[in-house]
Amino acid sequence: MSLLTYKSIGVVHSPFKEPKNVPIQAASKATVGTLEIYPEYTEGLQDVEGFSHLILLYHFHLVKGCSLLVKPFLDDTLHGVFATRSPARPNKIGLSVVRLTGIKNNILQIQNVDIIDGTPVLDIKPFVPDFDCRNTNKIGWLGSKIGNLETIKDDGRFSK
Amino acid sequence: MSLLTYKSIGVVHSPFKEPKNVPIQAASKATVGTLEIYPEYTEGLQDVEGFSHLILLYHFHLVKGCSLLVKPFLDDTLHGVFATRSPARPNKIGLSVVRLTGIKNNILQIQNVDIIDGTPVLDIKPFVPDFDCRNTNKIGWLGSKIGNLETIKDDGRFSK
Repeated sequence: MSLLTYKSIGVVHSPFKEPKNVPIQAASKATVGTLEIYPEYTEGLQDVEGFSHLILLYHFHLVKGCSLLVKPFLDDTLHGVFATRSPARPNKIGLSVVRLTGIKNNILQIQNVDIIDGTPVLDIKPFVPDFDCRNTNKIGWLGSKIGNLETIKDDGRFSK
Repeated sequence: MSLLTYKSIGVVHSPFKEPKNVPIQAASKATVGTLEIYPEYTEGLQDVEGFSHLILLYHFHLVKGCSLLVKPFLDDTLHGVFATRSPARPNKIGLSVVRLTGIKNNILQIQNVDIIDGTPVLDIKPFVPDFDCRNTNKIGWLGSKIGNLETIKDDGRFSK
């Protein structure tokens, strides 16, 4: 089993100081935060300001343990972890699409933040609909649950 | 600088034995491949078959070096690496949305493969339009280049 080692390129600053009550994915539209990229990577931000949305990859640093079967926030039954966006994954990598509202030097202003304060950042990728969007209504167990997205929040179950 | 260590949960099998001539992102619609998840993670695949598309996170294992300014395949000028999907990134993590056409035990049949044979896999996430899609036409330098997506391929520049 090969180990893959990465380093944090920056950190998220957000209003959420703990997992509990963090909105889930796109339900976080109104939440603003900042993304501080460490100065040695600032050059890599050139031209990022042209994109309205970014894909952030980050490390779920507060999550404890890992389960192959999990109860996600949006359901009461167990699902395979790879059929969910649960943070208690074998590799604790999170993915969120955020809105970019400004950049000054190494600080990015972002919206749609569903990420805990202090989260280490692994990568920023420009969001490009031609690369990243697909038309589908086949979303498995989420099909009957997605309507609850705006009302359900993180209850802290993966960080205890 | 904190180091983050992950382990490969599986491997991609694809027709592309080297980076050269691999199609770029969604231009790989017709390409089929398989995703072999290591047996110890098979339980985590429960209910994955309900989703038509998956987000794969993987390690660009053949990419050498890293640049903060890169010439991506779709342009002739330098851009900050975080404004591109270039593999020569500080953390060599790739992201592709693939179509799922079948699962048998720990083997997933996938389409839309723009990934090299033998690539180590970090994570599988269900693709959910409500989480992952945004309406935007603000795609920076790519705005005038995206029309070339079907004709431009990897030329091997990041693996020499």
